[in-house]
Amino acid sequence: MSCYLDFFCKNIEDIKKQGRYRDFRVVEKQQSAYPIAKNAKNGKDLTIWCSNDYLGMSVNADVIDAFVKTAQESGVGSGGTRNISGTSGEIATLEAKIAKFHGKESGLVFTSGYVSNLASLSAIVAIIPDIVIFSDEKNHASIISGIRHNKAKRHIFAHNDVKNLEDLISEYPKETPKLIVFEGVYSMDGSTPNIVKIVEIAKKYNAMTYIDEVHAVGLYGKTGGGIAQFYGIEDEIDIIEGTFAKAFGVIGGYITAKAEICDAIRLNGSSFIFTTSLPPAICAAISKSIDIASSSLGDELRKKHFTIVDFIKSNLVSMGIEFLQNESINTHIIPVIIGDAKKAEQISHILQDEYGIYVQNINYPTVPKGSERLRITASPLHTIEMARGLCDALGKAIKF
Amino acid sequence: MSCYLDFFCKNIEDIKKQGRYRDFRVVEKQQSAYPIAKNAKNGKDLTIWCSNDYLGMSVNADVIDAFVKTAQESGVGSGGTRNISGTSGEIATLEAKIAKFHGKESGLVFTSGYVSNLASLSAIVAIIPDIVIFSDEKNHASIISGIRHNKAKRHIFAHNDVKNLEDLISEYPKETPKLIVFEGVYSMDGSTPNIVKIVEIAKKYNAMTYIDEVHAVGLYGKTGGGIAQFYGIEDEIDIIEGTFAKAFGVIGGYITAKAEICDAIRLNGSSFIFTTSLPPAICAAISKSIDIASSSLGDELRKKHFTIVDFIKSNLVSMGIEFLQNESINTHIIPVIIGDAKKAEQISHILQDEYGIYVQNINYPTVPKGSERLRITASPLHTIEMARGLCDALGKAIKF
Repeated sequence: MSCYLDFFCKNIEDIKKQGRYRDFRVVEKQQSAYPIAKNAKNGKDLTIWCSNDYLGMSVNADVIDAFVKTAQESGVGSGGTRNISGTSGEIATLEAKIAKFHGKESGLVFTSGYVSNLASLSAIVAIIPDIVIFSDEKNHASIISGIRHNKAKRHIFAHNDVKNLEDLISEYPKETPKLIVFEGVYSMDGSTPNIVKIVEIAKKYNAMTYIDEVHAVGLYGKTGGGIAQFYGIEDEIDIIEGTFAKAFGVIGGYITAKAEICDAIRLNGSSFIFTTSLPPAICAAISKSIDIASSSLGDELRKKHFTIVDFIKSNLVSMGIEFLQNESINTHIIPVIIGDAKKAEQISHILQDEYGIYVQNINYPTVPKGSERLRITASPLHTIEMARGLCDALGKAIKF
Repeated sequence: MSCYLDFFCKNIEDIKKQGRYRDFRVVEKQQSAYPIAKNAKNGKDLTIWCSNDYLGMSVNADVIDAFVKTAQESGVGSGGTRNISGTSGEIATLEAKIAKFHGKESGLVFTSGYVSNLASLSAIVAIIPDIVIFSDEKNHASIISGIRHNKAKRHIFAHNDVKNLEDLISEYPKETPKLIVFEGVYSMDGSTPNIVKIVEIAKKYNAMTYIDEVHAVGLYGKTGGGIAQFYGIEDEIDIIEGTFAKAFGVIGGYITAKAEICDAIRLNGSSFIFTTSLPPAICAAISKSIDIASSSLGDELRKKHFTIVDFIKSNLVSMGIEFLQNESINTHIIPVIIGDAKKAEQISHILQDEYGIYVQNINYPTVPKGSERLRITASPLHTIEMARGLCDALGKAIKF
């Protein structure tokens, strides 16, 4: 064994040398005070400015209520895989709800967004072994994992480059099965795809479409359906994948599509079948969260969220702090590029230690080397005053 | 698109023709009545005899209490990945607790047992690219997925066949890095490994050892540490993997090992890093469940559980109903082999419709074709009267 330890030590050392060793910061959330939390290290207040709880749903009283009541009625675990006693009434209800939410026939719930991409994409390749996949270069690790799993033939197209996509796809005859995989909002850049053009290309070259809307559901479109809904194009997308862990505030992932597609993925997805299903209480909380997000209250929350986002953006502009801006849609993610792993880390720690502000520095492999950044996110529970405090602190920390 | 639908329809048809189409049965659990639940289809009572909630922890009042309190204090979701605001005090506490539980240095928590195998094994292959893996042929789908992920060189040894393992491993020079992967209790057969001999082989040929204890933790050994603890050999196993979704009654998975191993897997496991962490309430419920399972109350629960298991087994023997028996340890899983997919399904439906008993039929690909079975499991919440009812009903249904 001792000789084996050397492999692990060497790996850790290499990562440290590359400046990408990660210390997780322990944060104690308090429902009543959110987005102010406690730094577990010293008990001091921290305002969280990097959570994906975009609508503050994780601390919504009605969502918590649904969670608590279901746990008291049904317990805390499902007790089995979907096939072996683990299909609760709550998970069946949630699958119907998510389909309706996107105007699709069926829904399928997974333990996480990561697993929904892994299971669905690897199942599609098992079902259509000759399929050729065209994947945006900035697609999430879980998409890459799903595509690689069954060794599908694949092409990576340049980020949001529909010309490059068309060049690649046009090389194949019409009868070759094809799948275009892309995201609604790219997490680290806040960029959005030219979805209208992608759908046009899909039709022209007879390809299926698969959109990962994890950073968009709850936030864009008339009921928060995501970027496809924003463009009124949900019907034209074959498979929509999403998460319950970001704007919906809980945990878990899903796909929604035609009934036969969901059914076949249900029957073929190893990481869907051979795993314990989400607890009933989790599913009930998600259902409540979707109800809220798709109601007029959801509109209010989205409006408040974007008020904070826009306030920060306009402040950063006037302060001369550059951040990535998306051309077509004003998105909610504010990436302040630092360009150096160590410097990004130092700024993040100054913000935390001197100003009680938590913005995680994002390093390789999450983003390419040389594009290390602070990724700022907000929620409707942040105030203009907090946002002003963030901008002031960032202005000082960035010049250190 | 329409042409694509044909692929999915064809796949579903093929599965139906093979008699392995799965209809999930919707079960409404009630905390106060468990193991009696409601059949969502007709509202009738169903006694569940196929759950993996082996100690009934999913409905334990103290576990539910921890779950509820933490949700009320901290909300229902963590709001981020482990690296980006998603490391709660509760998950940090749980990682320390699970290490202590197994007498190891560190613990690492994943969103599921499936993901813990996938992330850990694929990370090990990334860290030690030349490693050769020796894997039991009955290892779980998640282990296979983890091993295949980075295309590790691998050998499959015959189930529990230490002679075959030694034949394969002895072909390699001592300096070749090697990993032996096996399970504590094999889910579908209830079989257990010759762990003492496996450890001996590992030492002789300089291999690391990785045990999947998902169906054993909470149940075997003096504090419920699993099969390795049962044999007093936990120290000799390099990596122990387990789940929080079975005997601990909640959801999630883990590994525990030396600090450097956990740290390197933490830094390299894609499905560990790029996914939202388990909610604080889930982690708090798990911690409470581990506390109970490792206390004297846990001993009582294990004793009650095995009283029911043994009652069923001795009844089945006297009724002449054959089931798989494990040679070395009396395990808790009772597989009644039917040997035909359709017949297994019919018996399961007779039990449900005529006797209000839920034992899921298990078909290919979960078990090999021709070994289709009913897999009976119990809990401390089942009574002798219920067990008698199960045996009587099974005796009638099996002869239909």
